Amino acid sequence: MSHAPEKFTAAVVDEFGPEVTVREVDLPEPGRNQALVKLQASGICHTDLHAAEGDWPVKPPLPFVPGHEGVGEVVKLGPGEHDVELGDIVGNVWLWSACGTCEQCRTGWETLCNDAEYGGYTVDGSFGEYMLVDTRYCARIPEGADPLEVSPILCAGVTVYKGLKMTETRPGQYVVISGVGGLGHIAVQYAVAMGMRVIAVDIADEKLELAKKHGAEFTINAREKDPAEAVMEFTGTGAHGVLVTAVHEAAFGQAINMARKGGTIVFNGLPPGEFPARIFDIVFKALTIRGSLVGTRQDLEEALDFYARGLVKPTIAECKLDDVNSVFEDLRKGRIDGRMAIRY
Amino acid sequence: MSHAPEKFTAAVVDEFGPEVTVREVDLPEPGRNQALVKLQASGICHTDLHAAEGDWPVKPPLPFVPGHEGVGEVVKLGPGEHDVELGDIVGNVWLWSACGTCEQCRTGWETLCNDAEYGGYTVDGSFGEYMLVDTRYCARIPEGADPLEVSPILCAGVTVYKGLKMTETRPGQYVVISGVGGLGHIAVQYAVAMGMRVIAVDIADEKLELAKKHGAEFTINAREKDPAEAVMEFTGTGAHGVLVTAVHEAAFGQAINMARKGGTIVFNGLPPGEFPARIFDIVFKALTIRGSLVGTRQDLEEALDFYARGLVKPTIAECKLDDVNSVFEDLRKGRIDGRMAIRY
Amino acid sequence: MSHAPEKFTAAVVDEFGPEVTVREVDLPEPGRNQALVKLQASGICHTDLHAAEGDWPVKPPLPFVPGHEGVGEVVKLGPGEHDVELGDIVGNVWLWSACGTCEQCRTGWETLCNDAEYGGYTVDGSFGEYMLVDTRYCARIPEGADPLEVSPILCAGVTVYKGLKMTETRPGQYVVISGVGGLGHIAVQYAVAMGMRVIAVDIADEKLELAKKHGAEFTINAREKDPAEAVMEFTGTGAHGVLVTAVHEAAFGQAINMARKGGTIVFNGLPPGEFPARIFDIVFKALTIRGSLVGTRQDLEEALDFYARGLVKPTIAECKLDDVNSVFEDLRKGRIDGRMAIRY
Amino acid sequence: MSHAPEKFTAAVVDEFGPEVTVREVDLPEPGRNQALVKLQASGICHTDLHAAEGDWPVKPPLPFVPGHEGVGEVVKLGPGEHDVELGDIVGNVWLWSACGTCEQCRTGWETLCNDAEYGGYTVDGSFGEYMLVDTRYCARIPEGADPLEVSPILCAGVTVYKGLKMTETRPGQYVVISGVGGLGHIAVQYAVAMGMRVIAVDIADEKLELAKKHGAEFTINAREKDPAEAVMEFTGTGAHGVLVTAVHEAAFGQAINMARKGGTIVFNGLPPGEFPARIFDIVFKALTIRGSLVGTRQDLEEALDFYARGLVKPTIAECKLDDVNSVFEDLRKGRIDGRMAIRY
Repeated sequence: MSHAPEKFTAAVVDEFGPEVTVREVDLPEPGRNQALVKLQASGICHTDLHAAEGDWPVKPPLPFVPGHEGVGEVVKLGPGEHDVELGDIVGNVWLWSACGTCEQCRTGWETLCNDAEYGGYTVDGSFGEYMLVDTRYCARIPEGADPLEVSPILCAGVTVYKGLKMTETRPGQYVVISGVGGLGHIAVQYAVAMGMRVIAVDIADEKLELAKKHGAEFTINAREKDPAEAVMEFTGTGAHGVLVTAVHEAAFGQAINMARKGGTIVFNGLPPGEFPARIFDIVFKALTIRGSLVGTRQDLEEALDFYARGLVKPTIAECKLDDVNSVFEDLRKGRIDGRMAIRY
Repeated sequence: MSHAPEKFTAAVVDEFGPEVTVREVDLPEPGRNQALVKLQASGICHTDLHAAEGDWPVKPPLPFVPGHEGVGEVVKLGPGEHDVELGDIVGNVWLWSACGTCEQCRTGWETLCNDAEYGGYTVDGSFGEYMLVDTRYCARIPEGADPLEVSPILCAGVTVYKGLKMTETRPGQYVVISGVGGLGHIAVQYAVAMGMRVIAVDIADEKLELAKKHGAEFTINAREKDPAEAVMEFTGTGAHGVLVTAVHEAAFGQAINMARKGGTIVFNGLPPGEFPARIFDIVFKALTIRGSLVGTRQDLEEALDFYARGLVKPTIAECKLDDVNSVFEDLRKGRIDGRMAIRY
Repeated sequence: MSHAPEKFTAAVVDEFGPEVTVREVDLPEPGRNQALVKLQASGICHTDLHAAEGDWPVKPPLPFVPGHEGVGEVVKLGPGEHDVELGDIVGNVWLWSACGTCEQCRTGWETLCNDAEYGGYTVDGSFGEYMLVDTRYCARIPEGADPLEVSPILCAGVTVYKGLKMTETRPGQYVVISGVGGLGHIAVQYAVAMGMRVIAVDIADEKLELAKKHGAEFTINAREKDPAEAVMEFTGTGAHGVLVTAVHEAAFGQAINMARKGGTIVFNGLPPGEFPARIFDIVFKALTIRGSLVGTRQDLEEALDFYARGLVKPTIAECKLDDVNSVFEDLRKGRIDGRMAIRY
Repeated sequence: MSHAPEKFTAAVVDEFGPEVTVREVDLPEPGRNQALVKLQASGICHTDLHAAEGDWPVKPPLPFVPGHEGVGEVVKLGPGEHDVELGDIVGNVWLWSACGTCEQCRTGWETLCNDAEYGGYTVDGSFGEYMLVDTRYCARIPEGADPLEVSPILCAGVTVYKGLKMTETRPGQYVVISGVGGLGHIAVQYAVAMGMRVIAVDIADEKLELAKKHGAEFTINAREKDPAEAVMEFTGTGAHGVLVTAVHEAAFGQAINMARKGGTIVFNGLPPGEFPARIFDIVFKALTIRGSLVGTRQDLEEALDFYARGLVKPTIAECKLDDVNSVFEDLRKGRIDGRMAIRY
């Protein structure tokens, strides 16, 4: 640790708004159960945009450094026992830490802990050359992983992987992936690797092509035909599971019609607005509708294992820390396919 | 069967509208797998009103006899092998029969069969002195049961029992029963017998008193205080399960706020209109929202077993077949507590 | 049906013993819910040997025709409604029919029905040019399937597919397939298609080679090293699931040591003798041990769907009806890899 | 804490054997995440006998203080954040602590953690006036609980409660409690409170009387009739679940015959010897056989909640710390009904 500087460069939210400030900040000292990490890469997630703009009901405390898909090397360990060592490659994640003792933590649902800390939100994140992680909750990056490529697994990957599990779709059953963007294109790969029969729905032909390449059996351009009718025709009685990664209200309504009786629909995004489903349909079709947000440490380890085995490969584009504001602008305009990741 | 007449009296829907016609109809001959039943009692369900008025998307074929909570004696058997004998006391139910071979039937979800017949809807029901049942699907009434008292178990009972199962609330966990009417007052009893800690919500104090008498630990008058706040205060972190038997839109929205993170909400009624939940809350709290309609033969047998053991006792009021129109009027005006049942 | 003969050739068990008699029998008339099927192929299962020798506690009534992996064309339909038509290709299976109304049937567990009929055991089977099936329970063979190749799916295939489901191993978790014979070589393929990480154990290198070819990640020759130690070393903490298709007592004991704490072991064979596990280990490791026998119609349809999609391909060798006795002899001596199937 | 002495009296195992030594030991200082507890009561469990005699494969390090059902007041807190405060009443349990980060801990199965510490085994326990607990894992005793009466809930109670959950018996289904001793008499009460229909089996009429008093529907004296036949006759098709708390080999074999097809048998004790089940029966009946050991913090909190609500009341007899050796002698001879608890 002799080479760690006293200050480092980070993208900081000093006040809520469309832009971050790339500036020097003080190097933090790892506390108990914590490690200091020198970053190699960090994905940029839509949530970082919400954090910077402060547009969610609970806002982060100012100033803060966004970023919760960071990958880097452990360069210093705080007091306490650790499962990681100096030199290990680890990651920060949205669920930065949890209390470990509440009912949710006790039952394997730490993502629902009321005393959790969130990476790049309540705790400084990965948009900087250094960050802290809680070694009890950080990601362990599989040996040999490309830091840039693996970074989206830490949030987008685990989110869709957990979402797919929550659809309760078994191998051999049909799952619809609604929306083939940053989340959806990874979801298609996980679903295929999990043995599901995948139907992909989007409004852009090139995204549907990507879905096919990743193993989708059937694709539907929702601009060209009614996706629910097409799903019914292809499957006979509807899909067992539907994973909604799209954030359009229309997608929520379509999901009801694509699911078979007794099927499960999982919402994997956090859109604004009401859910427009007719209660009559939910009851009459005995549907299960469910929300799913990121994943636990166990989900994360499993998601990383699929990556390590070469079954999932996020599409990424590389940028620099200085580019964060322009990436934010592109995200706002929906101009980004796959995932942008900062290389340090 | 020498004494079975050629004609009998029934309440018939000759055309859709607010009233049925009590008139003579021809005695049917039981077909294969069918039995002719001489009725002793029949509950009157809100669904019968929908059937008579023809206000659901799929209408029954005219003319027809409503009623799917009928109890009576087997007086004649059609061709085929039967699990019931002459003299057995059986019941008709909403799920009059199913195909037995589709994916839903094969997996214990016959209630979702697309080729099902519905009692008092697609097949003549129990608002008459005689009816047919399919002996593979009819209810077997426990020995010694009072025909009137047991009749609501055949629909209201099994519906809430299945609904409670679908909340996945385990013994010792909190369940909210929202609405203590014809369905809800039975739901409280099943939930208590299933070991759940029951919270009852209604807007009428006398119904909440009834809930207390049946074992509810805590009751909330939603006119006097915010039910979600009251549930949170009583439970600490919210209810594990919420069974919504009320048909007001407000109840659907409150359910979201009463559930704990990761909890399950089951809708047990078929109201008109949209479901007004904010998708943000569903995802953020990782809720499961589910519709549930009646129950399978297995659910029914279990529901009847709870009744037979004296753990569930519907509140009923007795009427005659000639009273159906006035009971319909009372149902329409919400003037009926518990359940009306016809004595033949 | 003008061309159906009055008599046909079948392999008949006239008395229990090592040999069947190939002789003429009368063509049966399909009863209610039944169809007459002209056979194209039939697999030969180890169970047929037990049936012929009459060495199970409950013996079949003499004389009878063994065989429960038959594939052929529907040439005549008995009375009743049918889901199959003349010309359809269907199969008979071990679970020839079930009652449809008991608790097991009502809950999707028809394989546990106490009133079931068994193909080639209580009902004449597929070791003949014609057979009867119950159209409510027969297999529907996917279009374009090779009759010989698909025949083992009807018993061996569905058995291991169901067994794998019962291990509750999720995609991405480790499953051990213990024994790579007639059942095991198909199990490896299903497990891979279901997204599991497969470890195969056998005592013959050529079988382990086959397992590798079908996608096993890791193979262990139990003659060369301790399989439990090898599994522990490869997985770190043991396998999540273990499917025991071998019929040696040693395999049962090893399974306990290969499973991780909280893991599930499924026995897929019916060996004689006691199960030699130390109860201390079962409790201390919190293991789940489970028996699984064939599968339901739903399991069968799913198993056939994997075959139809080209994900599972049984290794078969072809023989003639006249060869049954010599195949029996080979089975007895363990000289058969993969599966023998009769071509008609 | 001014009044905590430098030394206190405890029952110590200085070398493995039938007797403990009651002598002075040094008061320990609570480490990080630990609290010092002044004991009010401690149950005496059969496991303490195994610990003292050192007859399990993995032995505790000498010298040590047994006891893992201790209840007392927090009198000093070590460094770190704590969920308990000075003056709180807490308990030690068999699962004294776990690592919090392994796969088992991450998924709500901390009882299977390979790095766990065990109370009164690897860490000094409750057979003394003071003990340490890990505040992240200790039991929180419900307000107003009688220290003696609640103490057996900390091990016997949670063990059978968890065991019953693992039988997957739902409310309204049959469960057999095999053995109505220290574990079994509490199991009957939990099973009744969980809505199960309870059948109790023992060889002593007074224990069966106790089971009846606690709500068992049906009792069987296994000395007088075959318990499996009696269960079959009473239930029709066998029990859904069987909880084996008895430690006789005969009980294990009987369990197989008492379970219905597809049923689940849970072993709740740690007897020596092999499990004598015929594999044929396990496969043919599709049984699930499972071991269960103590419970997690969540199970414990739930088990205590049933106690706090007055639904479960262990039968206890009071003794003094000096009586431990004579209680051990009585345990060895099977002379103890219910549970002995030390009052400090």
